[in-house]
Amino acid sequence: MPTRLSQLFVRTLREDPADAEVASHRLLVRAGYIRRQAPGVFAWLPLGLKVRRKIEAIIREEMANAGAQEVHFPALLPREPYEVTNRWTDYGDGIFRLKDRKGADYLLAPTHEEVFTLLVKDLYSSYKDLPLSIYQIQDKYRDEARPRAGLLRGREFTMKDAYSFDYTDAGLDESYQRQRDAYERIFARLGLDYVIVEADAGAMGGSRSEEFLHPTPVGEDTFVRSNGGYAANVEAFRTIAPESRSYEKLTPAEVLDTPNTPTIQTLVDVANEKHPRPDGRAWTAADTLKNIVLALTALDGTRELVVVGLPGDRDVDLKRAEVAFAPAEVEAATEADFQKHPGLVKGYIGPWTAAGPVLGIRSETGIRFLLDPRVSDGSGWITGANEHGKHVFGLVAGRDFEADGVVEVAEVLAGDPAPDGSGPVELARGMEIGHVFQLGRKYAEALGLKVLDENGKLVTVTMGSYGIGVTRILAVIAEANNDSRGLIWPRNVSPFDVHVVAATKEPEVHAAAEKLVAEFEDARFDVLFDDRPKVSPGVKFGDAELIGVPVIVIVGKGIAEGRVELWDRRTGVKTPVGIGEVVDAVAALA
Amino acid sequence: MPTRLSQLFVRTLREDPADAEVASHRLLVRAGYIRRQAPGVFAWLPLGLKVRRKIEAIIREEMANAGAQEVHFPALLPREPYEVTNRWTDYGDGIFRLKDRKGADYLLAPTHEEVFTLLVKDLYSSYKDLPLSIYQIQDKYRDEARPRAGLLRGREFTMKDAYSFDYTDAGLDESYQRQRDAYERIFARLGLDYVIVEADAGAMGGSRSEEFLHPTPVGEDTFVRSNGGYAANVEAFRTIAPESRSYEKLTPAEVLDTPNTPTIQTLVDVANEKHPRPDGRAWTAADTLKNIVLALTALDGTRELVVVGLPGDRDVDLKRAEVAFAPAEVEAATEADFQKHPGLVKGYIGPWTAAGPVLGIRSETGIRFLLDPRVSDGSGWITGANEHGKHVFGLVAGRDFEADGVVEVAEVLAGDPAPDGSGPVELARGMEIGHVFQLGRKYAEALGLKVLDENGKLVTVTMGSYGIGVTRILAVIAEANNDSRGLIWPRNVSPFDVHVVAATKEPEVHAAAEKLVAEFEDARFDVLFDDRPKVSPGVKFGDAELIGVPVIVIVGKGIAEGRVELWDRRTGVKTPVGIGEVVDAVAALA
Repeated sequence: MPTRLSQLFVRTLREDPADAEVASHRLLVRAGYIRRQAPGVFAWLPLGLKVRRKIEAIIREEMANAGAQEVHFPALLPREPYEVTNRWTDYGDGIFRLKDRKGADYLLAPTHEEVFTLLVKDLYSSYKDLPLSIYQIQDKYRDEARPRAGLLRGREFTMKDAYSFDYTDAGLDESYQRQRDAYERIFARLGLDYVIVEADAGAMGGSRSEEFLHPTPVGEDTFVRSNGGYAANVEAFRTIAPESRSYEKLTPAEVLDTPNTPTIQTLVDVANEKHPRPDGRAWTAADTLKNIVLALTALDGTRELVVVGLPGDRDVDLKRAEVAFAPAEVEAATEADFQKHPGLVKGYIGPWTAAGPVLGIRSETGIRFLLDPRVSDGSGWITGANEHGKHVFGLVAGRDFEADGVVEVAEVLAGDPAPDGSGPVELARGMEIGHVFQLGRKYAEALGLKVLDENGKLVTVTMGSYGIGVTRILAVIAEANNDSRGLIWPRNVSPFDVHVVAATKEPEVHAAAEKLVAEFEDARFDVLFDDRPKVSPGVKFGDAELIGVPVIVIVGKGIAEGRVELWDRRTGVKTPVGIGEVVDAVAALA
Repeated sequence: MPTRLSQLFVRTLREDPADAEVASHRLLVRAGYIRRQAPGVFAWLPLGLKVRRKIEAIIREEMANAGAQEVHFPALLPREPYEVTNRWTDYGDGIFRLKDRKGADYLLAPTHEEVFTLLVKDLYSSYKDLPLSIYQIQDKYRDEARPRAGLLRGREFTMKDAYSFDYTDAGLDESYQRQRDAYERIFARLGLDYVIVEADAGAMGGSRSEEFLHPTPVGEDTFVRSNGGYAANVEAFRTIAPESRSYEKLTPAEVLDTPNTPTIQTLVDVANEKHPRPDGRAWTAADTLKNIVLALTALDGTRELVVVGLPGDRDVDLKRAEVAFAPAEVEAATEADFQKHPGLVKGYIGPWTAAGPVLGIRSETGIRFLLDPRVSDGSGWITGANEHGKHVFGLVAGRDFEADGVVEVAEVLAGDPAPDGSGPVELARGMEIGHVFQLGRKYAEALGLKVLDENGKLVTVTMGSYGIGVTRILAVIAEANNDSRGLIWPRNVSPFDVHVVAATKEPEVHAAAEKLVAEFEDARFDVLFDDRPKVSPGVKFGDAELIGVPVIVIVGKGIAEGRVELWDRRTGVKTPVGIGEVVDAVAALA
């Protein structure tokens, strides 16, 4: 049966919803695909559900092709397994916790590594049972601080999460590759551009980790790529440390007056004016060592200050800092922090001490001091002398100061060399649409998942975790396929194959449209039929553009001459076609 | 591709799980369909998920046939809509409540009347948009006090819940009938016996309400039915009150000594011995008026006592009492309650007062006194005289005492007359598998869902609510279809069409089985193939019986003579069939 717009539970809106920041959110609400129920929580109307089911069907097919079996876990899970892996605590405010009537603790699962691990432990005990890949398509929950952008970052969302179980590293590599290949096929079928980038293995504590990013200006992830094939999430980008240089021939450091130079720019100006470089070249920001005070808040709420030293031409990238200091939260130190530490002379902080090469700042203030990898042994810098209006010039790393360690918190800049030597990188923005991850043995070890190997020896299983955000992907497709008039679905996921519009109220036109719809149905097309008798052609066309079925057939007055119009939603081109040929013409587009 | 048991994520168990009380729970766990994650919370293995999807597909088809459109709501919903209808409070401990990081209140929805109502209000505004029926298949949550019996009463469970919207009562009747018809088709296709019984409209506050009960001894609902076609949940059974009788000729009541008669039986014995009935017949329990003290706990925690008077041959049915006093919780009064009310002489309570026809017990104790409908005006009783060892004989309702009202809390007994005059009822147990309910205008009124009618006047919409427990139905089917060896699925919902067992390890047998499996696949059968090379035939047969695919084909040594065995799981009969005929033979069974 065709779906008749006169009956379909939908209402299109002329106005953008007030809370919609991005096109997908705006259009999915306006075209009647979804409706907001709470921040980051949506109901699905029939149109939205149809698109979602098509995406899910493609994912299921490719999971089956990858040899993964479908299971289904509850969203409501007990605290205990997440306690064992520390994630009950590690997730901080990021998850929904609740108690049952007996006071037992539960969570709404944000991801399911623990319970998949336990289920395999429950069922399997031998290497012969492996490899195993299992997955689910299931609703997940995260208590996002700023649920925004509609389905792009919801608090209730649907994911396909798969997990692989192997007893050898080589097996894990194969299982990983099978999922990775499946993801490539899925995104190809969905018509979604993607870049596979190295990701930070981070708090999940695994080894290999890659994200599938869809390049888009509204993406919340920044990634870098080189012409030579390197691609990484900025969080995963690793700086090539320059080689150490000898400092035998370098002149000693010298403390000089630099009045009113609390910023890098004022410092560079004053340095060039009052203390020009002996070789005549101008000082630049890259010659200065900027020492930034960061405040780290651990999960238990304790606050620690840390000073990071980095070349003055770069800022701290807080996302990279979050990864470097995970699971602590990171922010710039506040005025209150400085007041508690009078040893930190704001604007003039530096690792210099009269005592020579000691542990930089910590020896004076007790605060950890970490360095950007670019501050290699033998490099010389202009940096704060821990006294108002004074900087030290020619302070040499390794000779005049040391640090507590190296840290990657400096922003990545276009032109930075890719760590694999494949040339300079460029920066772009993307939206994460998939993630493949070698978890290794972390979860299996924590939860005791072992099997007997060929020699009858118990070995710990090694795991992979593979996620695709189903509802997010739907939004990303909408984001990538729209214009000022509405959505334009790729055919594979369009809610209908063809949208037939009866453009006038005349009975002959309606009858012809009904007949055409029946022919489409006979040819197994899924048809949306705008049969609304009292709606003007203009409104019908507007709704058709908003709803975004890519192929529209207009049955209008031309019917008297046996003609209809075939309207390509994407190009906007309307082509007259004989009514006898239109079904074949639409089939030919597929 | 066939599903190979060597690859399938499953493990059958020889032992019953310790916590399983009923066959469906025991067998679904042992056969590897589900696994417990927490009390009343289960994970679904591939076998279980396949059966579930088949049930869902049948429901979806019949919903489409009934003109209902599918939508999907979140499980996580904000408090506000449930506050408007009082259900946030009314649900008591029965729901899961939680807070987000900002402290806002949420619940895991146990049912979705409120948000469906609000969604229709959001989208629709005219009578022309109606009738509308929309539904979802979605996970719901109830914090059951005693989650038990596996999927039969879970805390996370999947339901199909549909809602109809009309602007006339006649429209609601039609929408209700369409869903009711769909339910009949669904249960017929699922091969599930059912009885449609009148249900109590109860706390939901609607008018017509019927339950589909599957008759089963493990059912938690008791229902009654007459040969004449009456059927009702005991909660909904209404007693026919006898007509009032004149008490002009009745003798006056008399207080008599009845030492040591705190129970009905001791009272009847002593009465017959010491105070025989003038007409010579023996006194029976039905001649006594039993006055039971119940304690009602309101949602706000306040506790009230109430005395109910009923014929001494009947007990109070607490489930009927829960309905009568909803939403309060009901229990028998405790020793502490009696101690607080010395006016209640335990074992000798009665409405008799020396003052004559006053408000029974309340005038003496301040406690409300309610009567069973059988205690009609003019009926005479032996009942307590509010003094140890004394009862009053010939106390006549209406003449000697009055009550605060009538209440239906007495148990229904086999032989009681059906209220529609269709004869005596019998009692049976059943499991609720569906519920259709005319909500009327309660939700629409509370949430302001109105539409403009033909005359441009705003009218409140009238609604129906229609639920089927998807996961519960799966368990009920399992409960109705098993034997001591395992499950026996009806073909419509069996996880596979046919289960092929390669019964020996010989290569020729394996090769023949592989070939047969390929033929079944070509004929579009969904095949489970037990290809496990190192498993004995006995274990394979045991697993086949446990898993319960109704048609099993055994490929064994008979293959040398071109024969296989067709094994009917339900009858246990094994029939030799030529290998060339077996695909057709299996097809013929369908």
